[in-house]
Amino acid sequence: MTKEELPLLVDLHKNVFFDEEQNKVVILDRRKLPDEITYHECENYEEVAAAIEKMVTQSLGVSPAAGYGIVIAAHQIRGKDRSEKRKYISKAVERIKNTRPTQTSLHHLMDEMLKIAEEKIVDDGKLFEAMRKKAHNWTEKLMEISRKLGKHASEVIEDEDTILTHCYGGPAIYFMGDYAREQGKEIEYFCTETRPYLQGARLTTFALSRGGFPTTLITDGMSAYCMEKGLIDKFITGADRISMDGGVANKIGTYQIALAAREYDIPFYAHSYTGPDPDTPTYKDVEIEMRDPKEITQIRGIRIAPEEIDAFYPAFDCTPPELVKGVVTEKGIYPPVEVSSYFEENS
Amino acid sequence: MTKEELPLLVDLHKNVFFDEEQNKVVILDRRKLPDEITYHECENYEEVAAAIEKMVTQSLGVSPAAGYGIVIAAHQIRGKDRSEKRKYISKAVERIKNTRPTQTSLHHLMDEMLKIAEEKIVDDGKLFEAMRKKAHNWTEKLMEISRKLGKHASEVIEDEDTILTHCYGGPAIYFMGDYAREQGKEIEYFCTETRPYLQGARLTTFALSRGGFPTTLITDGMSAYCMEKGLIDKFITGADRISMDGGVANKIGTYQIALAAREYDIPFYAHSYTGPDPDTPTYKDVEIEMRDPKEITQIRGIRIAPEEIDAFYPAFDCTPPELVKGVVTEKGIYPPVEVSSYFEENS
Repeated sequence: MTKEELPLLVDLHKNVFFDEEQNKVVILDRRKLPDEITYHECENYEEVAAAIEKMVTQSLGVSPAAGYGIVIAAHQIRGKDRSEKRKYISKAVERIKNTRPTQTSLHHLMDEMLKIAEEKIVDDGKLFEAMRKKAHNWTEKLMEISRKLGKHASEVIEDEDTILTHCYGGPAIYFMGDYAREQGKEIEYFCTETRPYLQGARLTTFALSRGGFPTTLITDGMSAYCMEKGLIDKFITGADRISMDGGVANKIGTYQIALAAREYDIPFYAHSYTGPDPDTPTYKDVEIEMRDPKEITQIRGIRIAPEEIDAFYPAFDCTPPELVKGVVTEKGIYPPVEVSSYFEENS
Repeated sequence: MTKEELPLLVDLHKNVFFDEEQNKVVILDRRKLPDEITYHECENYEEVAAAIEKMVTQSLGVSPAAGYGIVIAAHQIRGKDRSEKRKYISKAVERIKNTRPTQTSLHHLMDEMLKIAEEKIVDDGKLFEAMRKKAHNWTEKLMEISRKLGKHASEVIEDEDTILTHCYGGPAIYFMGDYAREQGKEIEYFCTETRPYLQGARLTTFALSRGGFPTTLITDGMSAYCMEKGLIDKFITGADRISMDGGVANKIGTYQIALAAREYDIPFYAHSYTGPDPDTPTYKDVEIEMRDPKEITQIRGIRIAPEEIDAFYPAFDCTPPELVKGVVTEKGIYPPVEVSSYFEENS
């Protein structure tokens, strides 16, 4: 398999795109993977916002979808007067921002698109083209960052390594294996299923096995056993946020696996697409999002527990820096104590 | 709630019994809990054996079911000649032993029932009555042991403790809370869902919430997070086997939680209904049963992962003695280094 044939889930350009013939935003429906490869079509920005909220796409699929949501808004408002166009696009930007109130990079993209709208508001054709170019370039930028992360991580991977990963850490999880393979290293992946939403079972195994890697699924409680049996060499995940002390906020369950990894001297690396967060001084400052406990008492809509009990669903946990070997960024891999120098260097 | 009103799942006499009017063995179908309280009826020993194999009952429900399987064999063979009766009961005993080739206590019960058959083979009525008494007394013995384990464990439980448990550890898990409650202690339970078979979500929460305890369900990856947040005071489970060095073989996932518990000085206790196993010198001597990986790629019959990937399903793991605070037996609680003295003492 060559790099030109990226696995579907890895290629963000195939995850979200604008269908020019039908004037629709088309989003790969991650909720239905791996059973069905289906696409969700959106005819206006409201449908795009709703799709983001309903988890049709997630992770690095969100901001491209948001970008194309504004593209379609620019398409729909053609021929209206300037103030109406301004109003409509502002409304679209606000609506889409609110789907993920805390995702900084998404908000950044939305602000840039609003600025483009201001500049190109006179000419419908130019406005639409500029918007489309912006959404495309943004997506391409994410792909470039993913490749860089993958390249850096590939350098710590050794021949015959088995890499354990938790949740779906985005395209970089694939690229690190792909670069390692290019360097002549044979590698395998173990994926935790990642309850409750099963991203590991549904998405990660899908991306990696389609990418040609031997891929083994385990449940979330099996990592320590696999490590004890010598089956795991590295633990490498994505990260939702990196604190300035080098702590890693990621999908719930990561911390528990990192504790087991320490027991067996297995290094833990986390990919960060955006670098450390200057607004989060230490790992203890990460506020953990609590989600609907119904997602714990049900699996894909089927109730698995008595009605009368409580359930508890922290969506993330935060692994302290002492359990982290390195934070993988587009600038290179930083040991946790050096994470803050990410902002000092040139690269 | 008084002790006379035991939760359904806790009362082993209600889990398996002989229906005298219809001459059937009736087994509470644990596979359908908590959605439905249904009973599986068996008209002969073969149906009982099949029910055990298909997990209609499990854990401490198995040997009572096996016992009543021989009761029904004794009932069906009435009026036949002596050698035919002997042959039929021997066949039934062999068939049922083979449902769980490694469960020592089940084999012990089957051998005792075979001995009764030899002694009472002449008189059909006496044979049937002796068999029925044996199965009943065996079940009652399991209840007595469960109460003793619960009583001992209750003594280490403190007021306002929250107890984390993994998988379904049998009636003792309920009794320890019930005795603690009787001693005026307020306690709560957190239950892991226990993938892949979801015993925690389906059975443990059912037994404990019906038993009147505040019960919270979490996924298998959340234990370390809950411990870090100060939500857990004790980690207490059942045990499939105790090695002579005080290691604990239990449902996969236990070891990973025990590692997290050590990080927060949370003591780990395991209930052993049968005491340590003299044939297992150290925790490393426990052979881990590998089960069908299909149980990992599916949840309750629904496929959750791509067809082409591998999966791995070790059913148990073994926690080394240094992570174990105490092994709870009918004779009392032993620190792991003293487990072997279980056989020396009188009680």
